[in-house]
Amino acid sequence: MRKNTPPSLQKKAVLLLVCRDKPGIVAHVSHFVFRQGGNIVDSDQHTDYETGIFFMRIEWELGPKSVSRGLLKKKVKELAARFGMRYELFFGDQALRMALFVSRFGHCLHDLLVRRDLGEIQAEIPLIISNHDDLKSVARHFDVPFHVIPVTPENRVKAEENQLKLLKKHRIDLVVLARYMQVLSPRFVKAYPNRIINIHHSFLPAFIGGKPYHQAYARGVKVIGATAHYVTEKLDEGPIIEQSVIRVSHRDRVEDLIRKGRDQEKVALANAVRMHLQHRILTYGNKTVVFE
Amino acid sequence: MRKNTPPSLQKKAVLLLVCRDKPGIVAHVSHFVFRQGGNIVDSDQHTDYETGIFFMRIEWELGPKSVSRGLLKKKVKELAARFGMRYELFFGDQALRMALFVSRFGHCLHDLLVRRDLGEIQAEIPLIISNHDDLKSVARHFDVPFHVIPVTPENRVKAEENQLKLLKKHRIDLVVLARYMQVLSPRFVKAYPNRIINIHHSFLPAFIGGKPYHQAYARGVKVIGATAHYVTEKLDEGPIIEQSVIRVSHRDRVEDLIRKGRDQEKVALANAVRMHLQHRILTYGNKTVVFE
Amino acid sequence: MRKNTPPSLQKKAVLLLVCRDKPGIVAHVSHFVFRQGGNIVDSDQHTDYETGIFFMRIEWELGPKSVSRGLLKKKVKELAARFGMRYELFFGDQALRMALFVSRFGHCLHDLLVRRDLGEIQAEIPLIISNHDDLKSVARHFDVPFHVIPVTPENRVKAEENQLKLLKKHRIDLVVLARYMQVLSPRFVKAYPNRIINIHHSFLPAFIGGKPYHQAYARGVKVIGATAHYVTEKLDEGPIIEQSVIRVSHRDRVEDLIRKGRDQEKVALANAVRMHLQHRILTYGNKTVVFE
Amino acid sequence: MRKNTPPSLQKKAVLLLVCRDKPGIVAHVSHFVFRQGGNIVDSDQHTDYETGIFFMRIEWELGPKSVSRGLLKKKVKELAARFGMRYELFFGDQALRMALFVSRFGHCLHDLLVRRDLGEIQAEIPLIISNHDDLKSVARHFDVPFHVIPVTPENRVKAEENQLKLLKKHRIDLVVLARYMQVLSPRFVKAYPNRIINIHHSFLPAFIGGKPYHQAYARGVKVIGATAHYVTEKLDEGPIIEQSVIRVSHRDRVEDLIRKGRDQEKVALANAVRMHLQHRILTYGNKTVVFE
Repeated sequence: MRKNTPPSLQKKAVLLLVCRDKPGIVAHVSHFVFRQGGNIVDSDQHTDYETGIFFMRIEWELGPKSVSRGLLKKKVKELAARFGMRYELFFGDQALRMALFVSRFGHCLHDLLVRRDLGEIQAEIPLIISNHDDLKSVARHFDVPFHVIPVTPENRVKAEENQLKLLKKHRIDLVVLARYMQVLSPRFVKAYPNRIINIHHSFLPAFIGGKPYHQAYARGVKVIGATAHYVTEKLDEGPIIEQSVIRVSHRDRVEDLIRKGRDQEKVALANAVRMHLQHRILTYGNKTVVFE
Repeated sequence: MRKNTPPSLQKKAVLLLVCRDKPGIVAHVSHFVFRQGGNIVDSDQHTDYETGIFFMRIEWELGPKSVSRGLLKKKVKELAARFGMRYELFFGDQALRMALFVSRFGHCLHDLLVRRDLGEIQAEIPLIISNHDDLKSVARHFDVPFHVIPVTPENRVKAEENQLKLLKKHRIDLVVLARYMQVLSPRFVKAYPNRIINIHHSFLPAFIGGKPYHQAYARGVKVIGATAHYVTEKLDEGPIIEQSVIRVSHRDRVEDLIRKGRDQEKVALANAVRMHLQHRILTYGNKTVVFE
Repeated sequence: MRKNTPPSLQKKAVLLLVCRDKPGIVAHVSHFVFRQGGNIVDSDQHTDYETGIFFMRIEWELGPKSVSRGLLKKKVKELAARFGMRYELFFGDQALRMALFVSRFGHCLHDLLVRRDLGEIQAEIPLIISNHDDLKSVARHFDVPFHVIPVTPENRVKAEENQLKLLKKHRIDLVVLARYMQVLSPRFVKAYPNRIINIHHSFLPAFIGGKPYHQAYARGVKVIGATAHYVTEKLDEGPIIEQSVIRVSHRDRVEDLIRKGRDQEKVALANAVRMHLQHRILTYGNKTVVFE
Repeated sequence: MRKNTPPSLQKKAVLLLVCRDKPGIVAHVSHFVFRQGGNIVDSDQHTDYETGIFFMRIEWELGPKSVSRGLLKKKVKELAARFGMRYELFFGDQALRMALFVSRFGHCLHDLLVRRDLGEIQAEIPLIISNHDDLKSVARHFDVPFHVIPVTPENRVKAEENQLKLLKKHRIDLVVLARYMQVLSPRFVKAYPNRIINIHHSFLPAFIGGKPYHQAYARGVKVIGATAHYVTEKLDEGPIIEQSVIRVSHRDRVEDLIRKGRDQEKVALANAVRMHLQHRILTYGNKTVVFE
């Protein structure tokens, strides 16, 4: 029942589930895992106060006594049907496949790739997509294929089609917009529901839209921040995963806000991506449950 | 030239000034103070990058060689005229007179009065005004006269007149809205320009208006905050003096946001009030320069 | 299974337990509570990586189908015996009884009592004990009996006996040293193992012992802090419950460190006390598990 | 008198000075700069409360009316002699030359080089020195010559001689130990007094010496941090420039502390280096004045 398990999810299963709250769920689910021969190493749950919705994440070791994966999938399906659960089941040895979208600013790209090399972020990264070629050499240094797909008002639809084709070809599970400066179409967003993470360079819901650091400077705030969130059809209004903030003063010009903000962007985005890759995030409505 | 002077401003003068930036101002002002027999103990300046406006705060000891206060006032006036300066001159032995406005929540009131007793906040507090009598006993414990002036939609104008009369009678320099839950009329605000400090229980400009913690809960943010600002005619849009923030998670219900937020409100308001009382704040447009 | 339950623990039970880690514990304990007619509203667990020790906190509602308290106590005892568990069982309608020890500084005392009045801290506070009478009027304002027991090198043993008598008489569960400036004897500490919370005004283990703000000033640190910890026989070396920090600069004199530190002391102590009162802390060796 | 000047120090001079506090210094120095045809863009000062030592940093634009550099140097020397000042004079178009020392951990190296490319850190970096070759490819990616100088107990003296030769050859002004895991000899330290910045991966003075994250884990602290400081002969006891901290909990294993700590190391080190390169740091005894 180790809560502080190694970051590696090797030989483990993770079950995320959402259903109406009901007495006995924790006991049932815990017992269920035990009966399948699993040793629970982490378990966390939450009930939303107003709506009565129950959320659970349970992680267990697949030991020698565990049932086969096929049987486990069948049993989980039955359990979910019984309680009316929406669920996802993951196996730890199947790392998620992540695509990075970038434009011209490379700090988040660099940061994520260094963290991948350090093992902080455990994912396959089969490709980087950009509308510019500025960051090509960064991709080469970290040995990740780099695809340039220019985007103009005229070719937007076609460009997205090409992007989606690449994502499909590489069986991408998670799209990370690491300071990608184009707005995605509703059609693109629908293809990856709660599977696109964006970093917005403000403390949402303050300063939605373009040039948030300039907006913050004009308003004269004393704290700025960055927000990592899932992308939905409404710009900058998707479920918030992580926020990071830092103090500023009248001495800080816009350039200083941009500099200080970069550090917040990197940390907020990296934390959000790590949480997603470890299957620690559940969404409901426009909010997230993050089981840290 | 001690920068780290005792908090007490006894036997000191503080000059705040604003003018168009021009070569030689710092040298001139420093030299001016030296010629009047003052020993500079703190000096700070700032130029706004976009507008070319220069701000300065200079604090000096009035020693045996200093000119008389009357003469000093005259000389400062001449200096200001020469450079086209807007300015304020304060003497440290004349503590500002502060009125506290409260409604039903007592945490900021308590906090400010404890800080007064500790010497953190150095001001005369001749009265507390409230639209309810809930906090009467707190006022009594700290020995501050407590005036109840009920406010209803019908009597609002009359109530504000009574408040203003009291403020005038007690020669109030600074009004602090320590969770006072009524909106002040433009007429009231105009009577105390940049002399009314409010604590708003959100991280402005996010969640303007009523029930900000409920708004924050509904939006699912991961950080909440409080903002101390000068009151202007536009609700929650005055110059921001100080902001304080804290992390929250999906586990925090609205009640928890309110509890966590209270600590931010207390700290942000106390810092803003202390800065004002030490003549460390200059405003321009909708922004502040805070010389900490 | 509401994790975000009301702060009130009315009609609830909380079980804290520690044992060797073993497959199936979470399932067993969850099932156990379910079988006794309890509806789990919060459950958290942890396994220490190095020692293989398992920690759990489980909180449930005592509903109409629940077994009697007497029977529950018996059943929990049997469960604990089976797994070799060290445990504590609490009922939410039995608020803990807390004694506050103070000397001359009143900020933590004031802070805790305001939080009690706000319902943040839910405990009976039948008495305050001090070695000085400075804070008598604060106690009176909050309606808590105040006992002055002077402590000198000569009368230390006798003074502690009188303190212990008072604690026993008032059936005290938790002793909070809210800036009490005397060192307690090993004998006193042994009478309340992991039931005495102290606030040390430094970021432990830095600056153990006297005058930590002066030590921090002399060392020239850029961040200071406060630490709430359980008191053990070794001064300032007990299990840490909570730490709070704030930035400082070369401008901050010792007086400023003291002022800034007070806010950290208040927050760290209040959080630690609230966690203890909600039965959220387990200790092992010199460390704590805090189930927030 | 722009305080918020562009980060670039082109066509500017910076004067750092230390002397006994005396009335009129600020006025004299300001006036002095004005008389040499300089337009002051930033000026900050500090007096140490206990010792009566005065510190000042003044930055000005060298305009068409400015005296020649040669004359300026002469005049500054005279000014310093008059007030008994220790001083340094810098010209903004002469970027400092910085050497990076690393071992096997690349996160700080990567971070500093990305910041250099972004213009956050403005210095010449003519070489990286390492006792291992692990980070060679990073150096190549950022186009910085990489020198491997293995260090063993036997060859330590010789290795340091080779390092010092390289530093001399490349006219290095500042040595940055970006997680360099060797202790420098007193001889090396003396060659670069207050010109070697180290990042220690703890919140000093807590956890001096080796494996600080393991020490922090063993002590059970709730906050960890990193400290950037000048290197002196006493290990980890030099003047602290910057500290950065983050919360941890019982869930964090040593690996998690290391991961969370890396972000603090990067930020603390980068801030310290930026402050040094902008000539914003003065030392006295074992402390720093950092004019941010």
